[in-house]
Amino acid sequence: MTWQVYLSGEIHTDWRELIERGAEAAGLDVEFTGPVTDHAASDDCGVAILGPEEKPFWKDNLGAGVNAIRTRTLLEKADVVVVRFGEQYRQWNAAFDAGMASALGKPLVTLHPEQHDHALKEVDRAALAVAREPEEVVALLRYVIEGSLSPQVPRAG
Amino acid sequence: MTWQVYLSGEIHTDWRELIERGAEAAGLDVEFTGPVTDHAASDDCGVAILGPEEKPFWKDNLGAGVNAIRTRTLLEKADVVVVRFGEQYRQWNAAFDAGMASALGKPLVTLHPEQHDHALKEVDRAALAVAREPEEVVALLRYVIEGSLSPQVPRAG
Amino acid sequence: MTWQVYLSGEIHTDWRELIERGAEAAGLDVEFTGPVTDHAASDDCGVAILGPEEKPFWKDNLGAGVNAIRTRTLLEKADVVVVRFGEQYRQWNAAFDAGMASALGKPLVTLHPEQHDHALKEVDRAALAVAREPEEVVALLRYVIEGSLSPQVPRAG
Amino acid sequence: MTWQVYLSGEIHTDWRELIERGAEAAGLDVEFTGPVTDHAASDDCGVAILGPEEKPFWKDNLGAGVNAIRTRTLLEKADVVVVRFGEQYRQWNAAFDAGMASALGKPLVTLHPEQHDHALKEVDRAALAVAREPEEVVALLRYVIEGSLSPQVPRAG
Amino acid sequence: MTWQVYLSGEIHTDWRELIERGAEAAGLDVEFTGPVTDHAASDDCGVAILGPEEKPFWKDNLGAGVNAIRTRTLLEKADVVVVRFGEQYRQWNAAFDAGMASALGKPLVTLHPEQHDHALKEVDRAALAVAREPEEVVALLRYVIEGSLSPQVPRAG
Amino acid sequence: MTWQVYLSGEIHTDWRELIERGAEAAGLDVEFTGPVTDHAASDDCGVAILGPEEKPFWKDNLGAGVNAIRTRTLLEKADVVVVRFGEQYRQWNAAFDAGMASALGKPLVTLHPEQHDHALKEVDRAALAVAREPEEVVALLRYVIEGSLSPQVPRAG
Amino acid sequence: MTWQVYLSGEIHTDWRELIERGAEAAGLDVEFTGPVTDHAASDDCGVAILGPEEKPFWKDNLGAGVNAIRTRTLLEKADVVVVRFGEQYRQWNAAFDAGMASALGKPLVTLHPEQHDHALKEVDRAALAVAREPEEVVALLRYVIEGSLSPQVPRAG
Amino acid sequence: MTWQVYLSGEIHTDWRELIERGAEAAGLDVEFTGPVTDHAASDDCGVAILGPEEKPFWKDNLGAGVNAIRTRTLLEKADVVVVRFGEQYRQWNAAFDAGMASALGKPLVTLHPEQHDHALKEVDRAALAVAREPEEVVALLRYVIEGSLSPQVPRAG
Repeated sequence: MTWQVYLSGEIHTDWRELIERGAEAAGLDVEFTGPVTDHAASDDCGVAILGPEEKPFWKDNLGAGVNAIRTRTLLEKADVVVVRFGEQYRQWNAAFDAGMASALGKPLVTLHPEQHDHALKEVDRAALAVAREPEEVVALLRYVIEGSLSPQVPRAG
Repeated sequence: MTWQVYLSGEIHTDWRELIERGAEAAGLDVEFTGPVTDHAASDDCGVAILGPEEKPFWKDNLGAGVNAIRTRTLLEKADVVVVRFGEQYRQWNAAFDAGMASALGKPLVTLHPEQHDHALKEVDRAALAVAREPEEVVALLRYVIEGSLSPQVPRAG
Repeated sequence: MTWQVYLSGEIHTDWRELIERGAEAAGLDVEFTGPVTDHAASDDCGVAILGPEEKPFWKDNLGAGVNAIRTRTLLEKADVVVVRFGEQYRQWNAAFDAGMASALGKPLVTLHPEQHDHALKEVDRAALAVAREPEEVVALLRYVIEGSLSPQVPRAG
Repeated sequence: MTWQVYLSGEIHTDWRELIERGAEAAGLDVEFTGPVTDHAASDDCGVAILGPEEKPFWKDNLGAGVNAIRTRTLLEKADVVVVRFGEQYRQWNAAFDAGMASALGKPLVTLHPEQHDHALKEVDRAALAVAREPEEVVALLRYVIEGSLSPQVPRAG
Repeated sequence: MTWQVYLSGEIHTDWRELIERGAEAAGLDVEFTGPVTDHAASDDCGVAILGPEEKPFWKDNLGAGVNAIRTRTLLEKADVVVVRFGEQYRQWNAAFDAGMASALGKPLVTLHPEQHDHALKEVDRAALAVAREPEEVVALLRYVIEGSLSPQVPRAG
Repeated sequence: MTWQVYLSGEIHTDWRELIERGAEAAGLDVEFTGPVTDHAASDDCGVAILGPEEKPFWKDNLGAGVNAIRTRTLLEKADVVVVRFGEQYRQWNAAFDAGMASALGKPLVTLHPEQHDHALKEVDRAALAVAREPEEVVALLRYVIEGSLSPQVPRAG
Repeated sequence: MTWQVYLSGEIHTDWRELIERGAEAAGLDVEFTGPVTDHAASDDCGVAILGPEEKPFWKDNLGAGVNAIRTRTLLEKADVVVVRFGEQYRQWNAAFDAGMASALGKPLVTLHPEQHDHALKEVDRAALAVAREPEEVVALLRYVIEGSLSPQVPRAG
Repeated sequence: MTWQVYLSGEIHTDWRELIERGAEAAGLDVEFTGPVTDHAASDDCGVAILGPEEKPFWKDNLGAGVNAIRTRTLLEKADVVVVRFGEQYRQWNAAFDAGMASALGKPLVTLHPEQHDHALKEVDRAALAVAREPEEVVALLRYVIEGSLSPQVPRAG
């Protein structure tokens, strides 16, 4: 079985690549999916495809609709949903994805620094694991998929 | 992942072929499904297979049952449902399919000329994108599946 | 048990009143619900409540969203959904409601003149009864709720 | 029918009271529910009831669990979910609630100032209405429940 | 709590009355529902309400549709479904109801003489109890609802 | 796409083989499934595997449980469910399967001689097609899967 | 709103009465449900109602079926499920109920002494609160229903 | 079709290997899944991956969360769930898995010695088969998948 893992949330750091590379290095049978991470494309896709809008609200509305075709489909197909909250920005769509994943009964893993613990307590409570670093997510996936604890993966923080 | 896209609605123009050719040209990993588009076969299938009926109502009833075996199955398997409303005919079954897709939580894309906007406002509100031309649907699928906005796809209208 | 019956579709004739009065005269334990039937209010509600939009598309979009809060809620609570297709207009939202009702597993009754039979064959096939006149819907509800066939209800058409 | 309306999100201003008073003044048949809005009680409930924890993470975890017993139950019973994003704080649990409401198929209304439009575009896209002021929510509920547009409710902003 | 108990199946003996009277005598908080048991009305309801059909197949089809509006609604609302198989007739609709009840997760009780045990083995396997006499169903309901075993209810057979 | 078609019901004639051969001859992409059709094995499987029972009721109970592991799994995976009612026996498990298929929203096809029409009216009403001969089921599958009406398939009866 | 709270598990101590009395004293709007707690009746109900069985396995089987009519119905109607694990016995049905509650998405509260923590870790992980004493459950319900933390409820242990 | 069979429960004897070897010897098209059966890894995975906890309760909590990512995913994908109760330990998570499987509508097979019959009566009642020995499970799978009863598989006990 190939595990489908949806990587939701923050798009300004390389956490997705770290997880993907780690999983590849560990030889895990995983297929990673996620939103479009090209920020400009993600913001512009609605008007670029469906035509211009003057008001920013409707430009955003068109874009969010187009992105949702991708994100809802992939999130619903996922076996595991990992949601990353970075140190900046409000990232409400990350929390929104976490709420959808939770209501759909998907195993949820959150990934964020300790400083957000109090603000994310409801989201973390709905998660089956709260990770701090991408390496921990790789170790999680390795254990979950292969049942092995790798002593050599050092824990960050 | 191969995306399943169900193309519902109008059967008198070549919009399905335009989308299918565009997707093929773009090299997208899509499998298109839809109703039987041979109008005569679609109308006659009930009585042709199950035996003659005198009353038109029952002839239609038999045919609609047979067609539903195909359409419901494929619509439920679809990842995305595109519904086309042409310039003629009432096309109630297109709106019916859109209602089913919406209640099943399928990402819905409508495709129709601006003249139908007011009459289709409830259907469009349930859609994640309202397109005007088949080329826009191809661009949508390209973005949704591959995450790339193609500058060279000119927007119609 | 009070039966919840949602009356969807055409809003330009008095078919809802005929059914409601008939049910009352028959003493049936029914609560009727439906969309807002004040056409102007239904069209304007979005911009009247949420603020003006220049483009007709977005005015319709706002209004359809507001109306959907009512219609989806009541349709989902209904025990029976009756959908009326009148002699005029495209009435795509009626067919859309029928599709939703069908996907939700609601017992569906359609109400329309014979002239629409062919165009509505898919919708009728999904219905448990196809009625021609409001009086027939009353007789249906009487039988369904009380189990009695009333000889005195004359069949129209 | 009494409508159940869940009021999620920001707990530092009086927006809930404004909506509740407005609905009462309009004589609407609504029952409002929501999270515990006593901030200290909400933060402390876990350790106060289940016993002390040294680490803030586990204190939050206990509290979030206890609060979830209330919030998930009431959110799942709601006919309409209104989610308020205020001008301060991260309010991830508001976005999480919106995600749950969306996945559960609940009609969603968001309530926030224009400044958050871009950051909330995914959440707003999943909503059936985006309101700016509590008065608009009252007008929405009045229209949705009674079908009447009140000319006297002035639109804020 | 009032328990909703749907009594499906055979309509030629007085088993429903026996159960209803027994439950009343025991003072149980139960509301019994079921199909229309007036055989002639049940057979004729389609054509009586919706107009004549020449072919028996379509006459039956209309009637079965009308009856299904009642039976599916009440079966889906039931807390417990009791299905009676009598000594005569094929009673396929009783088995059909049992299949629906089973797929819907309803607690199922079958009621039939021992002679049908082998033919009903699949249906009985899906049931939570197989009763022989209406008195046993009353005793079952009494225990289920009130938790008391009544020593005075003699077991038939 | 390979269509999964579950063939339920009568096990004393060669109707399954006729359908399977017809589908193969037509080159259809179908995988047929069904219950174990070795009557003796089907009756004995419970006690043969799990140990002897003296009472016929419990022997049947064990066997029905074992068979249900197969039949429920395959029925739930099916795209289309065909249920055959032969001229003999009570075949309650066929009607039970039809009820399950209906509640699960599976497209249902019944296959039976005209003589059972009245007794099967509820089951037929829940079906999307009522066929008389295996050849009609093959023609149905050909149309449903390939969209072609084959003039050369002669209709039986 | 009256909260439905199902009290599952151990039947040899008075924990249910303690919770019920505590809730009454606190004036909470709760309706408690649960299995039949008369151990002898619970063990005998199958054979007492449906007739004797020689083998203990089938006696238990009959009784478990009868009890399940009650327990599944009430558990599915519950808003909150509390599961108590006492100091003795294996109490597998308590863990089974917890598994059902979890899969049904019911808010789950476990109640057990610390000595069972390791053995119950999977069950506790699925719960929204782990309580040690009935008084804590009362305090939980008070907070959940009324939003108030009662300083006077002393924490046991 | 490859059958997915989830083997839940006791991890101290070689019952899984016996079933897997038996299925392989019989040439069955089965894929077996299950929890991590390395007891130490299963107990330590939480803290090993996510960081140390002082309190045993939270160590167990972390571990149970991590394990649940695996077990819930695989259990939900299973076609058949086999739950083994050994002669020692409380094995509440086995009963919890059985409850989840039952609520999810999975065909459930229990495997345990006769001595646990009374304590497991609720779990066994929810199962489609109660086996005593791994060999019986192999014979079950052979019959379920291939429809053949193997005379040469001797029944244990």
